[in-house]
Amino acid sequence: MRIFQRVFVTVSFMMSIAICRGDEGMWLFNNLPRKLLNEKHGFDPSEEWAEHIMLSSVRFSSGGSASFVSSDGLVLTNHHVAADTLHKLSTPEFNYYDKGFLATGHEHELKAPDLELNQLVSIEDVTARVNAAVTAEMGPEKANKARQAAMAKIEQASLDETGLRSDVITLFGGAKYHLYRYQKYTDVRLVWAPESAMAFFGGDMDNFEYPRYCLDVALFRVYENGKPAVVEHFLKWSDAGPADGELVFVSGNPGSTDRALTTDAVKTLRDHSLPFYLNYLCRLEVAIQQFSQQGPEFRRRGNDDLFGVQNSRKAVVGMVQGLQDPKFVAEKAEREAELLKELNARPELQHFAKAWQRIAEVQPETVKLLRGGVEFRERYYEIAEQLVLMAEEDEKPSEDRFKEYRSSGRESLEHELFSPAPIYDDLEIARFTVQLSMFVEQRGGDDPLVVAALAGKNPHERVTELITQSQLNQVDFRRELAKGGVEAVRKSTDPMIQFFRILEPECRRVRERRESLEETERQAYAQIDDARVAAQGISGYPDATFTLRLAFGVVKGYQEHGQEVAPWTTLGGAFDHEVVHEVREPWVLPKKWHDARKLIAVDIPLNFVSTADIIGGNSGSPVINRAGEFVGIIFDSNIQGLTADYMYEDQVARAVSVHAGGIREALRNIYGAKELAEQLGK
Amino acid sequence: MRIFQRVFVTVSFMMSIAICRGDEGMWLFNNLPRKLLNEKHGFDPSEEWAEHIMLSSVRFSSGGSASFVSSDGLVLTNHHVAADTLHKLSTPEFNYYDKGFLATGHEHELKAPDLELNQLVSIEDVTARVNAAVTAEMGPEKANKARQAAMAKIEQASLDETGLRSDVITLFGGAKYHLYRYQKYTDVRLVWAPESAMAFFGGDMDNFEYPRYCLDVALFRVYENGKPAVVEHFLKWSDAGPADGELVFVSGNPGSTDRALTTDAVKTLRDHSLPFYLNYLCRLEVAIQQFSQQGPEFRRRGNDDLFGVQNSRKAVVGMVQGLQDPKFVAEKAEREAELLKELNARPELQHFAKAWQRIAEVQPETVKLLRGGVEFRERYYEIAEQLVLMAEEDEKPSEDRFKEYRSSGRESLEHELFSPAPIYDDLEIARFTVQLSMFVEQRGGDDPLVVAALAGKNPHERVTELITQSQLNQVDFRRELAKGGVEAVRKSTDPMIQFFRILEPECRRVRERRESLEETERQAYAQIDDARVAAQGISGYPDATFTLRLAFGVVKGYQEHGQEVAPWTTLGGAFDHEVVHEVREPWVLPKKWHDARKLIAVDIPLNFVSTADIIGGNSGSPVINRAGEFVGIIFDSNIQGLTADYMYEDQVARAVSVHAGGIREALRNIYGAKELAEQLGK
Repeated sequence: MRIFQRVFVTVSFMMSIAICRGDEGMWLFNNLPRKLLNEKHGFDPSEEWAEHIMLSSVRFSSGGSASFVSSDGLVLTNHHVAADTLHKLSTPEFNYYDKGFLATGHEHELKAPDLELNQLVSIEDVTARVNAAVTAEMGPEKANKARQAAMAKIEQASLDETGLRSDVITLFGGAKYHLYRYQKYTDVRLVWAPESAMAFFGGDMDNFEYPRYCLDVALFRVYENGKPAVVEHFLKWSDAGPADGELVFVSGNPGSTDRALTTDAVKTLRDHSLPFYLNYLCRLEVAIQQFSQQGPEFRRRGNDDLFGVQNSRKAVVGMVQGLQDPKFVAEKAEREAELLKELNARPELQHFAKAWQRIAEVQPETVKLLRGGVEFRERYYEIAEQLVLMAEEDEKPSEDRFKEYRSSGRESLEHELFSPAPIYDDLEIARFTVQLSMFVEQRGGDDPLVVAALAGKNPHERVTELITQSQLNQVDFRRELAKGGVEAVRKSTDPMIQFFRILEPECRRVRERRESLEETERQAYAQIDDARVAAQGISGYPDATFTLRLAFGVVKGYQEHGQEVAPWTTLGGAFDHEVVHEVREPWVLPKKWHDARKLIAVDIPLNFVSTADIIGGNSGSPVINRAGEFVGIIFDSNIQGLTADYMYEDQVARAVSVHAGGIREALRNIYGAKELAEQLGK
Repeated sequence: MRIFQRVFVTVSFMMSIAICRGDEGMWLFNNLPRKLLNEKHGFDPSEEWAEHIMLSSVRFSSGGSASFVSSDGLVLTNHHVAADTLHKLSTPEFNYYDKGFLATGHEHELKAPDLELNQLVSIEDVTARVNAAVTAEMGPEKANKARQAAMAKIEQASLDETGLRSDVITLFGGAKYHLYRYQKYTDVRLVWAPESAMAFFGGDMDNFEYPRYCLDVALFRVYENGKPAVVEHFLKWSDAGPADGELVFVSGNPGSTDRALTTDAVKTLRDHSLPFYLNYLCRLEVAIQQFSQQGPEFRRRGNDDLFGVQNSRKAVVGMVQGLQDPKFVAEKAEREAELLKELNARPELQHFAKAWQRIAEVQPETVKLLRGGVEFRERYYEIAEQLVLMAEEDEKPSEDRFKEYRSSGRESLEHELFSPAPIYDDLEIARFTVQLSMFVEQRGGDDPLVVAALAGKNPHERVTELITQSQLNQVDFRRELAKGGVEAVRKSTDPMIQFFRILEPECRRVRERRESLEETERQAYAQIDDARVAAQGISGYPDATFTLRLAFGVVKGYQEHGQEVAPWTTLGGAFDHEVVHEVREPWVLPKKWHDARKLIAVDIPLNFVSTADIIGGNSGSPVINRAGEFVGIIFDSNIQGLTADYMYEDQVARAVSVHAGGIREALRNIYGAKELAEQLGK
C-alpha cells in the first residue's frame, strides 16, 4: 500500500483493542507482549534486545520509518519515503526521483533540504501528571485546554533538562500519557537511490498487489557537526533473510488506526468521512494528472503529488469497499453488543455504557465539521497559515498555544517552515484551484466566508492571483515575516497572508470545536477501555499514533481466487514479470537491470510477505529476526490488508517487504556499489 | 468541447431568454429571427432556404447532429459522434475507432448495430390541444399525468396517420408544445472514418482548447430496402468555406441549456447538482482509467467510456468555475431583479412574481432527490430496467405509461434494447462498482434499500455476482423475456432482473416525485415567460431540447491572455503543432499524414471558429453559408464557451468547426478516397 503516509486523518482518537487475533498488535516498547510471544512463538525478548531494536529504529519527519544499518550513520528507508526529498533535490536538468543516484564518496552525498530524523531514546509514563490538571467539573473545552497546558509544561521541562525533542503521546484514547524523548538529526544526506521504475515497478497498477518485484529502498546518512555520525546502535545484516514460517519483528511508526472506534463512529467513517475524502482525492488526482500530461517537465513537477494522491485513493477505495461490506459492521456491532451485555449484567459496571452514548452524540457535529472545514493542503497557504498562527500564538504563554506552536517544538517547525525546497507555482495553482472550488461547494456560494475568500473572482482566477502575487515562496521573506512577529503579519500586504487572515477566525473556531469533540471522545474511549479491562480483564496495545511500535508475525503465503500465492519473489522473477506485461509501461525494467542480468544470482529473493500487523507510517520499517538482524524492509501491504485501519486480519492480509539479500545483491551487481554493499550491517 | 453529449441532465426545465446578445440564439425553424437577421446581417432567409436546410439536417440517436451531403445518402457527422458505433463494430482483432476505415465499395460499407437517424420533416403547434387536458384545479401530480396522456394521444394519432416518428416537444418551459415528425433511418452504414489520433489530435489535453487541428469527421450512408437511399435534400459543398467575418448558420440539435433558470435554480446547480455530478465523473474517470491501464485490449474496451467521461468532466469543471464566479450569479440576479421591479410596478402584473417563489420552494426537494436517486448507467442494469418497466407499463393504456414505454416509441426502444452490440463484463463490473458504492454513500449503509440491494456483500462482490450470473448480455434472452411480458419478468431468476425489481418501487417513487416537481417548475417557467412578454415585450428562442434549431454567427478570432487568436488553422499547422509538442502522445500525427505531407496543399484550412450559439448535441451540425452550402462541421467549443449552458457570450466563447476544404483535401490526398471526395455535395 505504499504505506508511508497516514492516508486519512480522522477527528476521532484511539484506544486499545479487545481481543488480539493471530499476530495482531502494534506493541509499545515499554509494554511488549512477552507472555503472548512466549506462548505462541517460544520467544522471550530480553531488555537489551528490545532496547537495541528501539535505538536502531528511526522515524522520518516526512512520514515514514527507517533503521540505522551501519556504524557510520547509514539509514535505510523506502524509495517512496525518500521520494519527497528526491523531488525536492531534482531540477529540470536532473531528476533524482526517476533516474536514481549513487554518491561516489562522502563529499558527494546530497543534503536533504528539510528532513528531520528522530531516534526514540526513552519512554516515561506521565499519565498521573497530565490527569492531575483535569477535574471532573470541567466541561470538555476547559478540560482539553487544561490537559494541553499540562502536556506542554511536561514537554518544555523535559526539553530544558535533556535538550532532547520531547513529545507527550496520548495512548489508549486518553487512558495513558507517555513522554517520548528523541535524538534529532537534521543534517541528513542522500547516499543512494535506485530508479523510480524499479522502486515502483508496476506503478499504480501493481500498487497494493502481490506478487511484487520492487526495489523500494534508498540509503541516507546522518551527519553531526558536518561529519558522518558515529552510531552505537544499528542492525546487523542477514543476507539469508527469514525462512518460510519464521517469526519476524517489525519496528516502526504506524501512523494511525481506528480499531477501537464504536459502531457509530465507524458508520460516520463509512457514510461520511471516507466518501468525502475519496471524492477529494479523485478530484485532485484528475487535476494533477491533467497538469502532468502537459509535458515531461510538468510530469516531473507533478509526480510526487500524483503518486501520493493515487496511493491514498487506491487505499481509500479499498477501505470503502471494506466498510461498505455489511459483514464488517455486523461483526463490530456484535462484539460491541457482547461487551455491553456483560456491562449491563453487572450493576457496578452499568455506568460505563454511557460512554458509547456520548460517542454517538458527537457524530452529527463531526459530520458537520467535515463539510464546513477550512483546510487547504497547498504550500503557499500552509506557509501563510503557519506564519500567521505562529505570530498570534506566540503572544500567549507556550502552554496555552496550539500544540505545534509551543516553544518546545519550535526548532522542528522552523526547519520545515524555512525549507529551501522548490515550490512550483503552476502545480500549486492546479492543486489549490480544486481545493478552493470544493470549499465553495461545501459551504455554498452564498456563504459569507466564501464570498469574502473569493473576492469577486472564480476559484481559478483567485488562486492564480494569490499565488503569482505572493512572495511566500522566498525563504528570506518568510524569515523576515516570522522575525517581525504579530505586528509584521498584521501589516503584511502579501495576498496569501491576507487570504489566510480572512479565514483565520473560522479556522480557529472549527479547530476548537474539533478539539472539544475530541476531548469528549477521549474521555469516552478511556472509559470504554476501562470497561473492557473491568469486564473482560483484557488490556492490549493502543491504536497507532505515529510513534515507535513493535509488531510481529511469520513469513507466510496465502490463497487468492483459489490459488496459492507464494511468500517470495526473486530477482529473476522481475524479468518474467516484465515479459508477462509485454514490456509496457509501467512494467519496464531499468537498463541497468538488463545490462546486469547475467551477473546477478536470479534466485535471490526480492520481496516477501508476512503476517505482521502494519499500517501507513510503517513504510521503511526494518524487518528483524530473533537474533536482532535486519532481514528485510516493509514497503507495502497487499490489497486485502487495506481494512487494517479498522480491523486486523491474517487469512489473506499481508505486509510486503524488500528482502535483505535482494538489496545487497542489487547494490553489488546492478548498481555498481560494491563498497556500500559491504558496509551494510557493519 | 466534444459537444455531442448532453453533459448534464438537470431536473429543471427550460424557457426563453430575455434579451439576445450578439449572435445569441438557438432558433426554432418555424419561428426564425427574420427581423434580427435582416437588421444585423442584411439577410432574409426564404421559406425554401429554411426548408431545404431543415430537410438536409440529421439527428443521431446516439446523441449528435449531422447532415446529408450527397444524393445517394451520404451523412457527414463527427468522428466522436461515430465513436459509439466504431467501438461497437470493433473486436480485439481490429479497432475501427483507433485505426479508421474506408469502404472500397457499397458492399463493404459496415452496418451499425443500433443507430437510428432522424430527419425532421414537419412541425405543428399543438399547445392548445395539450393545455386543454389540464385544468386549474389539478395539483401538479394530476396535471402532469393529464398532460402526459394528452401528448401521448397526439403522438399516437400522428404515427397512425403518417407512419412517421412523432414527438411532442415541450418548449419555453411549458408555454408551447410542438409536434415534430421525423423520417427514421435504421439501416445506417459506415463509409469512412479517420484514425482517432487525427480526429482527436491533442487528446484530452487539447479538448476544448483552441487553436485546434482535428479531423473530427466520419461518413455514413443511409440505406432503404437494402440500397443506398435516394435523398432529395442534401447540402452542396463549398471548398472555399467562409471568409473572415462572414455570416454562417449552424443547423443542429443542441441538447439542453439552462439559460432561463431563476437565480435560485442556478444556485442549486452551483452548490449541489454540478458538484455532485463532478464527483461522480471523477470517481468514474479514475476507475475506468485503472481498468484501461491493464493492457491494450482493456484500453480498447474502455476507450469510448473514458473519452465520454473525460469530456463531460472537462466540461463540468469549466461550468463549475463559471457558476462559482460571483459575477455570474450577480448578473443573473440583477436581470431578475429588474424584471421583478417592472412587474411589481404594474398591479396587473404583480401576480407573476409568485412564479419565482414557487421555483424557490421546490429547490430543497430537488436537492434531496439528487442524493437519494436510484439511477445506474450500466448496460446490464439499463437492460433490466427497460425489460421490467416495459412489461409493467404495458399493462396500462399507452397514454398512462412512462413516456418511453408508449406504443408510439416502441420501435425505437426495441431497436436499442435488442442491439447486438458487444457488452464487456469486466468493464461493466468496474463501472457499476463505482456507482453502487456511491449509491451506498448517498443513502448511507444502514438504509433498508441499500441493505436489500447489497444482499450481504460489498459493492464489488455484489456487482461481480450480478453481472457474471446474468444472461441479459444475450439478445435472444432479452427478446424472450420481452415477449413473455409481465409474467415472465416477475418469474425471472436472472439476478440483474431481480436486483432491479428490488429497486423498482423506489425508482418509481423518485421518478414520480421528480416529474411532479418538474410540472410545478414547468408551470412557473411558463408564467415567467408570459411575464417577460407582458412586461418587456420580448419573445425569443426556447432553451435547447435536443431538437433541430438554427443558430447563426460570424467567423471571428478573439483575444486570449492579451494575444490574438486567429480564426483559422491549416493542414500544415497540424505538423507544426506536432513538433511543438515534441511528437509525444497525444500529439502524434498518423503515419498516413506524414506519408502524404508533400501531396497536400498545406494552406488549406483545417479548423475555424465562429460566434454561433452552440451547446452539447450540436456536434456534427453542418455550418452553412447564405447560399445554403456546406462550409464546415461543428465539433467543439473553446473552453471559454463552457458556460453556454447558462449564458451566451461572444467576446471569447467560440464554436469550433472542421473546414469543408480541409475535409475534401484530406479525403483526396491523405486517405486515398478520391471518388468519395468527388461525391461530396453531389
